[in-house]
Amino acid sequence: MFSGTPRPPPCGGALAGLRRDAMHMDLLLAAAYVSDAQYNRNVPFETAPQAVRLYYFYNHWTMQAATYFFICVDLSLALFEEPALFPLPLLATSIAEVLCLTAFFGRLVHFAKVTPQMVFWKDTKNICIMVTIVLTLVDLILYGSLDAVNIRSIRWSRPLRPVFLINFPESRQIRRAFRSIRNTLPDILYVFLLFTFSMLVFSLMALKLFGDRRVHSWQFLPVNSPIFGHCLPRSNTPRVMPAYDFNWWYSLYFITYVIINTYIFMSVFLAVVYNNYRKHLKNEIRKLAYLKRHKMIEAFNILKVKVGPEFVVEEAQWRRLVRTVAPDMSSGHLELLLRISDEGQTGHVDKMNFLRLADLLNIQVVTINIKRHPLEAWVPRVYQSSASLLVQKVVRHRIFVWVFDVIILINAIFIALDEKNPFVSYAEWLFLSLYVIEILLKLYTYEPRAYFGRKQFWNWFDTLIIITALVATVANTTIQSARKYNSQQILDIVLILRILRLLRVIVTVQRFRVIVTTLINIGPTMLTFGGLVFVVYYAFAIVGMEAFHGKVQFFDPNFTTPDALVCGNPALKGSAFSRGRYCKNNFNDLASSFVVLMELTVVNHVLLLADGFALVTHQAAKLYFILFHIVVVILIVNIFIAFILEAFFVAYSLEKSEVETAIEKKIQELGVGIQEEEVQDGKPTDHVDTKDHGDNKRKALEGLYCRIASKKYRTVDALLQWMFESEIAPEDEGPSLDEILNFSPSDMYPKNPNFENSA
Amino acid sequence: MFSGTPRPPPCGGALAGLRRDAMHMDLLLAAAYVSDAQYNRNVPFETAPQAVRLYYFYNHWTMQAATYFFICVDLSLALFEEPALFPLPLLATSIAEVLCLTAFFGRLVHFAKVTPQMVFWKDTKNICIMVTIVLTLVDLILYGSLDAVNIRSIRWSRPLRPVFLINFPESRQIRRAFRSIRNTLPDILYVFLLFTFSMLVFSLMALKLFGDRRVHSWQFLPVNSPIFGHCLPRSNTPRVMPAYDFNWWYSLYFITYVIINTYIFMSVFLAVVYNNYRKHLKNEIRKLAYLKRHKMIEAFNILKVKVGPEFVVEEAQWRRLVRTVAPDMSSGHLELLLRISDEGQTGHVDKMNFLRLADLLNIQVVTINIKRHPLEAWVPRVYQSSASLLVQKVVRHRIFVWVFDVIILINAIFIALDEKNPFVSYAEWLFLSLYVIEILLKLYTYEPRAYFGRKQFWNWFDTLIIITALVATVANTTIQSARKYNSQQILDIVLILRILRLLRVIVTVQRFRVIVTTLINIGPTMLTFGGLVFVVYYAFAIVGMEAFHGKVQFFDPNFTTPDALVCGNPALKGSAFSRGRYCKNNFNDLASSFVVLMELTVVNHVLLLADGFALVTHQAAKLYFILFHIVVVILIVNIFIAFILEAFFVAYSLEKSEVETAIEKKIQELGVGIQEEEVQDGKPTDHVDTKDHGDNKRKALEGLYCRIASKKYRTVDALLQWMFESEIAPEDEGPSLDEILNFSPSDMYPKNPNFENSA
Repeated sequence: MFSGTPRPPPCGGALAGLRRDAMHMDLLLAAAYVSDAQYNRNVPFETAPQAVRLYYFYNHWTMQAATYFFICVDLSLALFEEPALFPLPLLATSIAEVLCLTAFFGRLVHFAKVTPQMVFWKDTKNICIMVTIVLTLVDLILYGSLDAVNIRSIRWSRPLRPVFLINFPESRQIRRAFRSIRNTLPDILYVFLLFTFSMLVFSLMALKLFGDRRVHSWQFLPVNSPIFGHCLPRSNTPRVMPAYDFNWWYSLYFITYVIINTYIFMSVFLAVVYNNYRKHLKNEIRKLAYLKRHKMIEAFNILKVKVGPEFVVEEAQWRRLVRTVAPDMSSGHLELLLRISDEGQTGHVDKMNFLRLADLLNIQVVTINIKRHPLEAWVPRVYQSSASLLVQKVVRHRIFVWVFDVIILINAIFIALDEKNPFVSYAEWLFLSLYVIEILLKLYTYEPRAYFGRKQFWNWFDTLIIITALVATVANTTIQSARKYNSQQILDIVLILRILRLLRVIVTVQRFRVIVTTLINIGPTMLTFGGLVFVVYYAFAIVGMEAFHGKVQFFDPNFTTPDALVCGNPALKGSAFSRGRYCKNNFNDLASSFVVLMELTVVNHVLLLADGFALVTHQAAKLYFILFHIVVVILIVNIFIAFILEAFFVAYSLEKSEVETAIEKKIQELGVGIQEEEVQDGKPTDHVDTKDHGDNKRKALEGLYCRIASKKYRTVDALLQWMFESEIAPEDEGPSLDEILNFSPSDMYPKNPNFENSA
Repeated sequence: MFSGTPRPPPCGGALAGLRRDAMHMDLLLAAAYVSDAQYNRNVPFETAPQAVRLYYFYNHWTMQAATYFFICVDLSLALFEEPALFPLPLLATSIAEVLCLTAFFGRLVHFAKVTPQMVFWKDTKNICIMVTIVLTLVDLILYGSLDAVNIRSIRWSRPLRPVFLINFPESRQIRRAFRSIRNTLPDILYVFLLFTFSMLVFSLMALKLFGDRRVHSWQFLPVNSPIFGHCLPRSNTPRVMPAYDFNWWYSLYFITYVIINTYIFMSVFLAVVYNNYRKHLKNEIRKLAYLKRHKMIEAFNILKVKVGPEFVVEEAQWRRLVRTVAPDMSSGHLELLLRISDEGQTGHVDKMNFLRLADLLNIQVVTINIKRHPLEAWVPRVYQSSASLLVQKVVRHRIFVWVFDVIILINAIFIALDEKNPFVSYAEWLFLSLYVIEILLKLYTYEPRAYFGRKQFWNWFDTLIIITALVATVANTTIQSARKYNSQQILDIVLILRILRLLRVIVTVQRFRVIVTTLINIGPTMLTFGGLVFVVYYAFAIVGMEAFHGKVQFFDPNFTTPDALVCGNPALKGSAFSRGRYCKNNFNDLASSFVVLMELTVVNHVLLLADGFALVTHQAAKLYFILFHIVVVILIVNIFIAFILEAFFVAYSLEKSEVETAIEKKIQELGVGIQEEEVQDGKPTDHVDTKDHGDNKRKALEGLYCRIASKKYRTVDALLQWMFESEIAPEDEGPSLDEILNFSPSDMYPKNPNFENSA
C-alpha cells in the first residue's frame, strides 16, 4: 500500500541527514519487531504488525504534505479575516479553521500511536499543540456566539497559530531557537533588569544635569539612542553631543553612557544568550546520541540469539531487518554493509557492530569509479586520441581554473561600464560563450554524473547560472529585435546572475574556503531562522492589527490634502511620524503589518513609530513596539549571532584535527572508502585507479565505494553528534530511557571545568 | 640602600596579583643564587651579587615612577610641537625628546642586565623599543637639519611614541590586546576581503538596479550605512528603503544587504577575533605557568642537598631564601609557610613543596580573627552589656540590610522629584543622616579594620560616597547661606553621588552578583582598553594633525559671517559638513583631534567627516577616516567584546564548580584557612570562634589565618592560570626553556577536539 521509504521533509537541506538518522532509529526498532515476528512465525511482510504500518503511514510524504497544507491554510486565514486583504464571511473562515484543527488533532493522535506513551507525554511540543487546539476552539466558540448577538470581541487565539508551524515539522532548529529563547529568559531577565536600572540611573542623571525638567523628558533621554538599534540616530545626537557646541560634562556623560549601555551590556546579553545556547545545544546532542544508542540496544535485544558465549544477530535476521528498513537498497550495497558489520564472515553480527547499523545506513554508497565517461564507451578511439587527451589534460590543469577566474574578474569590470556602449554589450556575448565553452569542456573531461554529483554544489551553481543567463539574454534579444524594447525585469535578472558569477572566484582562493564553506553549511539552517522570525512577525502582526487597525491611512504621495499630510488622523498633526511621511507604516492588513515589522527590524525608527502610534491610540502602544524590539533585537539577533559563532568555533576547532568514527576507520581498513575531498574535483576515477590495492577484499566489492560525507559539509549538529558519539565507548549502554528524557542542561557543567573547555 | 619589597606598579588593581607572581619567580631565582652564595661562603647580604641589587633597583618604585614620568613627557610633547596648543621652540622640544629617549635607553639596558640574554632577545617588546628609539633619533636629526636650512618636513616618527607606553609598563593586558590585533590581522584580512567583495557586489547591483548612474554613486551606495557604525543613519534610509514609496525590489535588496553585511559578517568578524583572542590568551597562560615552573625548578637545583634518597632544601636555607625575598614578613607568617611546606616537620622541604613557594608567598596572611573590637578592649562592660549586644544583633540581622535598601530606593524617588520643594530638600538631609547612622552602627558592630579590609569593596564604596556627599552638602549649604547662591558644580557632584548609592541595592540581590562581580573584576582591565584606545587615538591624532591642520576653522556659533558658515574654507560651501555645523570637528591641535576621534568612535558620522575633509584636502583623506573606523570599530570593539565574553564564559563555567589548587587543599587540611566569603561581611571572628577545632596544630598557629583569595575576585587571567596549574602534575617539569619561549598558539589546538571543548 505505502511502498518506498518515507521521503525527506520539504524543509530539506542539511537537516535531512539528522532527521533521517532519527527516523532510521525508530524504523529500525519497529522493523526489529516485524523482522522478529516474521522470522519466528514465518508470516509475510504484508501482515506486519499495525505499528509498523502506522509508522510508515505517518512518515509517508502525502501525510506530511497534507500537514503542511493545513498549516499554510491556517496561517493564511489572517488574510481573509477582518482586517482583511480579501474579506471572507466569518462562517467561511471559521469552518476552514475547524477543518485545520481537526487535521492537526488527527495528526497528533496518529503520532501518539507510533510513539511510546512515556516519550509522547514528556514531549512539550505535543502538549503545546493540544493546548493550542483547545484554546483556539474555545476562542472560536466565544467569538462566534458573541458575533451571533452582534457583539464584536477580539479573536485572542490568533497569535497562537504559529504554534502549529513550530511544533509539527521535524525541523529541530526552529524549536531549539524557541527553546533557547524560553530557557534564556530567566537569565536574560536579570541582565535586563540591571540594564533597565543602568538606563534609569543615566536617565535620572541626564534629567537632573542637563534636562529641561518639564518638557521632552522622554524625547530627551538617551533611551532613544544606543540600545534601540545598537546605534545613535543622527537626529538625536546633536542634542546629546552637539558637534558645534561642545561641552566636557556632556561628552563625558555621553561616552560613559555609550560604553556601558551599548558595548558592555550588549556583550553581556550576547554572553548570556550564547552560553545558554551552547548549554542547551550540547544537552540536546547528548540526549539524541543516548536515545539512539538506547533504541539500537532495544532492537538488538529483540533480535538476539545466543551463539557461543555471547548474544548475536544472525545474518539472515540481519538481512531481513535491513531489507525491511531499506527495501530499495541494491544487493551489492547490502553485501558491503554486511561485510563491514560481520568482518570475520562468521555468519552473525555481534552487538557492537549491530549498534552501528543506523550510522551504516546513512553512509552513501556510490558507484562512480566503475563508470567510465560515456564518450569513452561510445567512441573510445576518438576519446582516447592524443588530441582529446591533451584537451582533458589542459582542462584538468590548475591554470585552466585560473584563466577562467581572470575572465570572470574582467567581466566584473565590464559590468561596471556603461552598457549603452555597443562594445560592452558585444563583450557580454563573448563572456557568455566563453563560460558555455568552459562547461562543455568540463563535461567532456569529467564523467557527467560525477560532475553533477549530489555534493558538487559549485558545479550545479555554475551551470544553472550560465544556462539561466543564456536563456534570459536570448529571450531579451528576441524581444528587443521584435519590439525594439528591452525588458527591464529580464535585464535585471541577467545582471544579478552576472554578478553572482563573481562568487565563483572567491571559492578558488584556499583561505576563503573555511569561511565560505561554513557559511554555506549554515545556510539552510539560517533559513529556519527565517521561519523563527516569520513566527514572531506573525504573532506581532496579528496583535498589531487588532490594536492599530485603521488608525493611520496611507495616501498617494502626490496628494497634499490636509488629511494626507497627517496620515488621515488629526492626532498626528505636527508629529515626526507625519512629517517624515511614515503613513505607509500601518497595520491595516497582514501584508502592511509584515512590512512595518520588517522595517522595524533593520531600520532604526522604533521610537518614532512608537511615538506616532501612541498619539493615535494610547501611551501603552509604546509597550508593543518596545517589546517587539526586545524580542527581535535583543533575543533573536543574539541567538542568530550565537548560532553563527558556534558554527565558526566548531569549524575552527576541527580545522586542524582528525576525528574519525569507528565506522570510518573500519571502512578505511577495508579499503573501500573514498574521502569526499577526492571526489571534490570530479575525478575520483583517476585517483582510485592509480592506487594499487590489489587485495581480494577490494576485488570482491569492486564497483561499490562508501562515500564518507566529509567534515566540511556537515552541519554543526551533525559534527557535534559525531564528536560525542566517537567519545561514547562502544560498550557503554548509556543511562536509562527515563534518565535520558530528563537530561538537564545544568548537568552539562563539568564539576571540574578544565583549562581547555573553560573558555 | 633600597630597602623594602618592590612596590606594585601604578597600573595597580587586579593585575598586581599576576605581576607580583612573575616578580616573585624572578626574585626567587635571583635570591636562590644569593642564598646559596651566603650559605656556602658565609658572606653577609650586603655583598650579595650585583644581579640581585640590580634587580631590586630595577623594580624600585622610584625607577618605575621615573619611567612613567618620561613616558608622559614624551607623549605630551605633541601639545607643544607645531600645531601646538602651547607653542615652544623646536630646540626645547627636541632636547626634551632626546632626554626622554636617553632615559628609555637606560631603562632598557638596565632591564637587559637583570634578564637572561635569551629571554631578553626573544622578547619583541625590547626589539620594538630599540627600533623606535633609533627611528625617532633618525627623524629628529633629519628634521632638525632640514629645519636649519629652512625646509619644513614632516616629523614622521611621532605616531610611534605610544610604543613606549605600550612596551614599558608591566601591564600585560594592553600588550595582549595589541598582539591580538597583530595576530588576528591575517585571519581578519581574509574575512575583510570577502566582506569588501560582498560590498562591491551589492554596490554594483545597487548601481545598476536603482542608481542614477552618473552622480552620487558613492553617496548612494549603501557603503554609507550598516557597516559604518553597525547601523543605519536615518538620513540615508529613506533613499534606500523609503517609508512612503515602497518598492518590493528595493526592500528585498535592502533586507538581504542588511542581513548579510551587518548581521552575518559582523558575527564572522567577532568569531574570528574571539577565536584568536582565546587561542592567544591560553597560549600565554600556558607559557607563563611553565615558565614559573621552570624557574622554580632552577632555584631548587641551586639550593638542593641530598638527604636520604632524594634531593631537598634544608630548613635553614629555605628560611634564608624567604627572608631575602620578603624581608618584612612576620616570623609567625614565616613559620606558617614552613609548616605548610614541611608538613612532617622533617627539617627540610622537598621538591614538590618547594615548587609551590611562589604561590605560597602570594597567599595573604591575616590576623584579623585575634583582634577584638577596640571598644571591647576599652570599655568591655559597656560593649558587652545586653543593650549593646542587642544593637549588634540587630545590625547583623538581614532585615537591617533590607531596611536600608528600601531607604535607598525611596531616596531614588525623591531624587526624581523637584528639589525646589523645601520638603524634598529637608528629606535629603534626613536620608544623609540615616546613611551616616548606618555606617556608625556597622562600625560599632564590626571590627573597623575588618570592615575596611582590602577586599571590602562595597564598604569602602559606601563610606566614601557618604563622606563625600556629607562634605559637599555641608559646603554647599555654607556657600548658600553666606552668598545666597547654590554652587552648580557641587550640586552636580552631590547628585551623582546620590544616584550612585543606588548601586548598593543591586548587589544585595543574589542573582545580580555573578554579573556585577564579573563586571567589577574586569573593571580594572577594561581601563587598560582605555590605554589601548588612547594609543590608537594618539597615533591617529598625530597623523590627522599633519594632514588636516588648519583646513577647517571653528567660529563662535553666533557668528553668521560667510566665513563662519563654511568653516573658514570656501571648498566646504554647501557641503553636509558645513551645513551640519561640524566645524568644531577639526585637527587644529591635539585636544581637538582627540575629541574628533572620540566622536567618530561613538557617533556615526565617519563618512560625513570623510567627505568634508576630502573636499578641503584630497580624496585620499577618506582613507584616513575609513582606516580609523576599521581599526576602532572592527578590531578594537570586537576585541573588547571578545574580552567581555571570555570573562563571562569563565565566570559561568566556574559558577557551579569547585577548583582547588594543591595549596588550598593543604591549608584547609591544616585548618588554618578561612574562605574569603567568610570574611566578606566583616564578621570572621564569630565564625571562627564558634568552630571548635581544638587540635594543637591550630593552637600553635593561632593568630594567623591564611586568606585564600576567593574565585569571585580573581581576574580571568588568574583564574585560567590557576586552572591550568591545577592540571599540571606536581612532578611534571614541563618542556625546556627554549620550547616554552617558542610555544605557539597553533599548538594549542587539541589534535582530537572533544565534545566538551569543541564549542
